[in-house]
Amino acid sequence: MNEYVKRGLFITFEGTDGVGKSTQADLLAEALRTRGYQVCLTREPGGSAAAEALRHLLLLGEVSFSLRSEILVHFAARFDHVERVISPALQEGQIVLCTRFSDSTIAYQGYGWGKGDQKILSFIDTLNKHLERQPDKTFLLKTSRQIAKQRLATRSIEQDYYECAEEAFHKRVIAGFEEIALQQTERVAVLRQQIARFMKYMIKFFKKF
Amino acid sequence: MNEYVKRGLFITFEGTDGVGKSTQADLLAEALRTRGYQVCLTREPGGSAAAEALRHLLLLGEVSFSLRSEILVHFAARFDHVERVISPALQEGQIVLCTRFSDSTIAYQGYGWGKGDQKILSFIDTLNKHLERQPDKTFLLKTSRQIAKQRLATRSIEQDYYECAEEAFHKRVIAGFEEIALQQTERVAVLRQQIARFMKYMIKFFKKF
Repeated sequence: MNEYVKRGLFITFEGTDGVGKSTQADLLAEALRTRGYQVCLTREPGGSAAAEALRHLLLLGEVSFSLRSEILVHFAARFDHVERVISPALQEGQIVLCTRFSDSTIAYQGYGWGKGDQKILSFIDTLNKHLERQPDKTFLLKTSRQIAKQRLATRSIEQDYYECAEEAFHKRVIAGFEEIALQQTERVAVLRQQIARFMKYMIKFFKKF
Repeated sequence: MNEYVKRGLFITFEGTDGVGKSTQADLLAEALRTRGYQVCLTREPGGSAAAEALRHLLLLGEVSFSLRSEILVHFAARFDHVERVISPALQEGQIVLCTRFSDSTIAYQGYGWGKGDQKILSFIDTLNKHLERQPDKTFLLKTSRQIAKQRLATRSIEQDYYECAEEAFHKRVIAGFEEIALQQTERVAVLRQQIARFMKYMIKFFKKF
């Protein structure tokens, strides 16, 4: 029994809005299912009933949370999602593909709103370390902010909480994701609009199992 | 300038539902205001706009949270409440009277649902230590479970999330509060239906300021 069958495989897709995370996760899920893998495709914030209720509070922006409170709500959603959806799927040996996870909290709350304040980053780190599972592999998707904005403009939904923030906020978020990728080169693979290369990478990655 | 004027005074009322926490807090607030003190009377879960939105999710019981997730939602509400209501009032030198605070999370989630599991208690403790203020004094009100149930029966509101739990849960919560009082004798004063003694105690307590 190899490691994947024993404990599943947990893959996250990270990056800013409009970068193509869910598109790539969908494509990968389809490709894996065709090859006979059991796949659990999920997303954050949300992914479980309780987490979706918290997502609603977070993204509608009708309620304003203090920064540490907002971080705690994200982790409240994440703990429920991990304990009730992600961990059970992994225990069955499934491949879990999740768009956004703790890296998004580090980038958006830690670097975006928190401007990289060490106390805020350390607060997030403390919460993150209490999670029972961490991603085995993370794909950080990148594109120019201009292309991402064009993609978002074609979506029919209203702009959410983050999209209404100033441009400097988005720059800090992007820099935050880059910082995470620099610090965790083994876990995080950065993909810059190289989807063909991404699919090649994935095929190579899954040949291990 | 004495310590109270410098940094305010933070008093919490703890105990099970129907024990008289808000009644005593109201009476004390009135007595203090009559004596010229600035009083901020507040409650948990809730006390700020964001925390009240989370209270709604927690107490209606329509959404079920995993235990750690429920603890995080309580602390998300608490952090917002502390940062936006309690700390600003204390900084103005006010006396903050709050019904329920972290001790309730320890008693209900740690001992009630968590059955005193050390990992759960330590998780709560980690979150609690990140709060910028802790109560200077806590009054743990006690009465028999029978009297508390009689009082609750006269309330016109529906039974909330906790009141629907089994009797063994309530016994663990009561034991949890007793454990906190044993561990923190300096901060926590236990009052057993001795309201006359309570008022005497309070008068003595406030003579210090």
